[in-house]
Amino acid sequence: MEWKVDRQSNKPLYQQVFDFIEQKISYGEFPLGTLLPSERKLAERLNVNRMTIVHVYDKLHAVGLVERKRGSGTRVSTHKWGVLSKGSTNWRRYVEGSTFLPTYPLIKRIREAAKQLENGFDLASGELSSDLFPSQLLQSSLVDESFPNDLSYEHPQGHLGLRETLSAYVKTNYNIKTTSSSILITSGAQQALYLITQCLLSPGDAVAIESPSYCYSLPLFQSAGLRIFGLPVGPNGINPKDIEDLYHKHQIRMVFLNPTYQNPTGTVLTDTRRKEVIEIAERLGIPIVEDDPFGLLSFKEEKHSPIKSFDYNGNVLYIGSLSKVVASGLRIGWLIGPQSVISRLADARQQMDFGLSIFPQLIANQFLQSADYTTHRKALTQELLDRRNTMISALHEILGEKVSFISPNGGLHIWCKINQKISDEKLVEEGIKNNVLFMPGSVYGFPDGYVRFTYARLEKKHIKDAVLRFSDILSRI
Amino acid sequence: MEWKVDRQSNKPLYQQVFDFIEQKISYGEFPLGTLLPSERKLAERLNVNRMTIVHVYDKLHAVGLVERKRGSGTRVSTHKWGVLSKGSTNWRRYVEGSTFLPTYPLIKRIREAAKQLENGFDLASGELSSDLFPSQLLQSSLVDESFPNDLSYEHPQGHLGLRETLSAYVKTNYNIKTTSSSILITSGAQQALYLITQCLLSPGDAVAIESPSYCYSLPLFQSAGLRIFGLPVGPNGINPKDIEDLYHKHQIRMVFLNPTYQNPTGTVLTDTRRKEVIEIAERLGIPIVEDDPFGLLSFKEEKHSPIKSFDYNGNVLYIGSLSKVVASGLRIGWLIGPQSVISRLADARQQMDFGLSIFPQLIANQFLQSADYTTHRKALTQELLDRRNTMISALHEILGEKVSFISPNGGLHIWCKINQKISDEKLVEEGIKNNVLFMPGSVYGFPDGYVRFTYARLEKKHIKDAVLRFSDILSRI
Ligand SMILES: Cc1ncc(COP(=O)(O)O)c(C=O)c1O
Ligand SMILES: Cc1ncc(COP(=O)(O)O)c(C=O)c1O
Repeated sequence: MEWKVDRQSNKPLYQQVFDFIEQKISYGEFPLGTLLPSERKLAERLNVNRMTIVHVYDKLHAVGLVERKRGSGTRVSTHKWGVLSKGSTNWRRYVEGSTFLPTYPLIKRIREAAKQLENGFDLASGELSSDLFPSQLLQSSLVDESFPNDLSYEHPQGHLGLRETLSAYVKTNYNIKTTSSSILITSGAQQALYLITQCLLSPGDAVAIESPSYCYSLPLFQSAGLRIFGLPVGPNGINPKDIEDLYHKHQIRMVFLNPTYQNPTGTVLTDTRRKEVIEIAERLGIPIVEDDPFGLLSFKEEKHSPIKSFDYNGNVLYIGSLSKVVASGLRIGWLIGPQSVISRLADARQQMDFGLSIFPQLIANQFLQSADYTTHRKALTQELLDRRNTMISALHEILGEKVSFISPNGGLHIWCKINQKISDEKLVEEGIKNNVLFMPGSVYGFPDGYVRFTYARLEKKHIKDAVLRFSDILSRI
Repeated sequence: MEWKVDRQSNKPLYQQVFDFIEQKISYGEFPLGTLLPSERKLAERLNVNRMTIVHVYDKLHAVGLVERKRGSGTRVSTHKWGVLSKGSTNWRRYVEGSTFLPTYPLIKRIREAAKQLENGFDLASGELSSDLFPSQLLQSSLVDESFPNDLSYEHPQGHLGLRETLSAYVKTNYNIKTTSSSILITSGAQQALYLITQCLLSPGDAVAIESPSYCYSLPLFQSAGLRIFGLPVGPNGINPKDIEDLYHKHQIRMVFLNPTYQNPTGTVLTDTRRKEVIEIAERLGIPIVEDDPFGLLSFKEEKHSPIKSFDYNGNVLYIGSLSKVVASGLRIGWLIGPQSVISRLADARQQMDFGLSIFPQLIANQFLQSADYTTHRKALTQELLDRRNTMISALHEILGEKVSFISPNGGLHIWCKINQKISDEKLVEEGIKNNVLFMPGSVYGFPDGYVRFTYARLEKKHIKDAVLRFSDILSRI
């Protein structure tokens, strides 16, 4: 419910709320029988006095728009305007009947709080702050004579020009050798993960993912009916031998890894281990999904060759994204793999959404080829390094022994262990109340007592205050 | 395989093809064990002499890159470069294990032919020709100071500004009353249909769709395990009583309709029948999905109020799209329905692709609000009417009694019955050979002997020649 009361208006507040709900009912947006929020909840959401809502519900009841039943709340009347009862779809049966699981409530709660946050500290959203997006550069890449006239449905694998640019890009930046026909342009890394879980796996299949892992935060693994087994992540990433063990114990059919500046731990899988992973995958014949959105965000001269760069037998599906290096709202990602797999996934994607819009593809293509891009990336990593340093100093100074963490050498996140017994949910709720947001470890499949701080989303000058605020709530619990 | 031989190059053709395949193998794009196309097929695809390919395969075999087994064709060697056999994922098991069905071969064949068509006639692709896309106007709507700096992940339902513009747009153009919180912006109508089949229905559910219908061309209905029942389409659309019959016989749980300038028949459901449909839906409590991409493409002063405009109880999920009115490559569509359903589908979409790119949403928002849009739409319908008239005259003049059809009053398509016994597949193949493409009725769930001609994709001056070419192949079969 984005609607807000207008405090400048001459219309009384209760009248505004009444009109709003009446409109929703008469437009069919709240069908017959819809359960309205409790008076307390609605008052909180709209930030008005509870008595105002009591007044509104009384009036809605008086005119016959809603019904009240003891213990079951207030519902849109099935005898609207006194007219004879008409049928209406029981939408709840449709919505709840599906196997597609909703986003975890705790994540939803944090995301909604982040959208509404004003004058607070967002250490939760895993993306860049808006001042880091190269908005002007992207716009200027559009104002170009090369703007196409042909705006038809695209090739199922995406715009050919962008695929060609990307095949040069992954060669230069990652030493990955591929051709445009083995690349699928996706709506971020997210869509690549979705396509893989939907089209290459079946309900009941066992898969291995890192523990903790971004993938645990995605109900789509559960929705697809997959059985999930964890590969513990240490300071040097996962232990390749664990893959072998899981294979023998549970016949895992696929392994999902985020080897560089892993989300949420910030760790890097060592080169030796990368080679072991590929050797095991080849020996056992199980594919590796290498999810690599942070690979280029390195604070040192170090360069980590993706597992894909050691893959000569087509065992690795490599996922890249511009979300963390350019802008998450651009929605450009890619998947590289054997041609037969890529064309199968492209076909499925075609059925789901008929492909990506041509516009972000053109923008990305122009931008990646321009000198601006290199300049942008250098400035970006420098700024992220500054923010990381500020964050680390603040954590040491303010929280000291209360937390433990390893300083990441790239990426957006710091993974912190809290050295006291704590309930994730309480901590999050207290954070929301005090306008400091962060991600609890439980979201990534970990026990209570860990948090992920994103230092990329906050301007440097606010970082210390954010840590102070966090320290406050921690000491209060 | 988009790759083509370079006939200008000094490198011999067989060497070009050899290098290409060797590269694919060494990059892992053709994993160990991959079946290569037959010599004949590859020669056809690359448009080279078959002996060239024989030569290439011989050399690949000689260096140990491929193996040949009698009766099972040529495969990438599992003993590559004489190195000890290494394992490799059996991708075929992954690709074929999924329940997600591939696009129907006949549709795929026509789409690929359309992409490669040069100097031919495309009466198959259901979209506008590129001269009708308002490319310049869209570009100029981007070059605007209102270009945003915030390129973060969007609201799960899509850009608020565009949703507000759309709620005014559907009020003005369709008399649909809604608010921004009951709109979900989608990647075309296609994604709206996908979300509905995935998130509101379960395997085994029965649904009703028009016969013939665009929906039959979508394997996603089968992939979702739905049982499909047809509602025959006459000159005035479907018969509402049939919905009731199917409900009693098969407990259908949802009805999919495309009531205005229906794809493929071009027919319009009458206003009286629209009201009957809503009355039945309310009485039985089953939802109607109203797919309406052509509603504004009317050649007469007639205006058809969508079923949604009579829906006060939230029984209709309304789908709109800019694909046929602005450009299919823009990928902007929308879904309007009860708030609880919309927010559920938005959440699922978030998991699938993390939402649409901000850029097409901004472009659409600017364009819909500009005076240019009205000008564009007027010019567009005028031009479509011209093309329809040209097409109708050509059909009468050239084919006469050989075909029967009803002239559509809007939209992009003419639905033709061929008054002789004919095999759809033969007709299509003969068409592809002779560079005239069209959609056979079987794709829309109809028996052989019907074709859909799209007059929107061909410039007016080519329409008569296209019909002549079609007449040629018809008389030859
Ligand atoms: C490891 C990882 N994979 C995938 C994604 C999805 O990103 P996008 O779809 O924006 O590329 C994220 C986003 O945070 C991530 O951290
Ligand atoms: C009836 C109908 N629905 C949906 C679509 C999908 O169109 P889009 O996703 O481009 O809006 C089409 C395309 O031809 C159509 O004809």
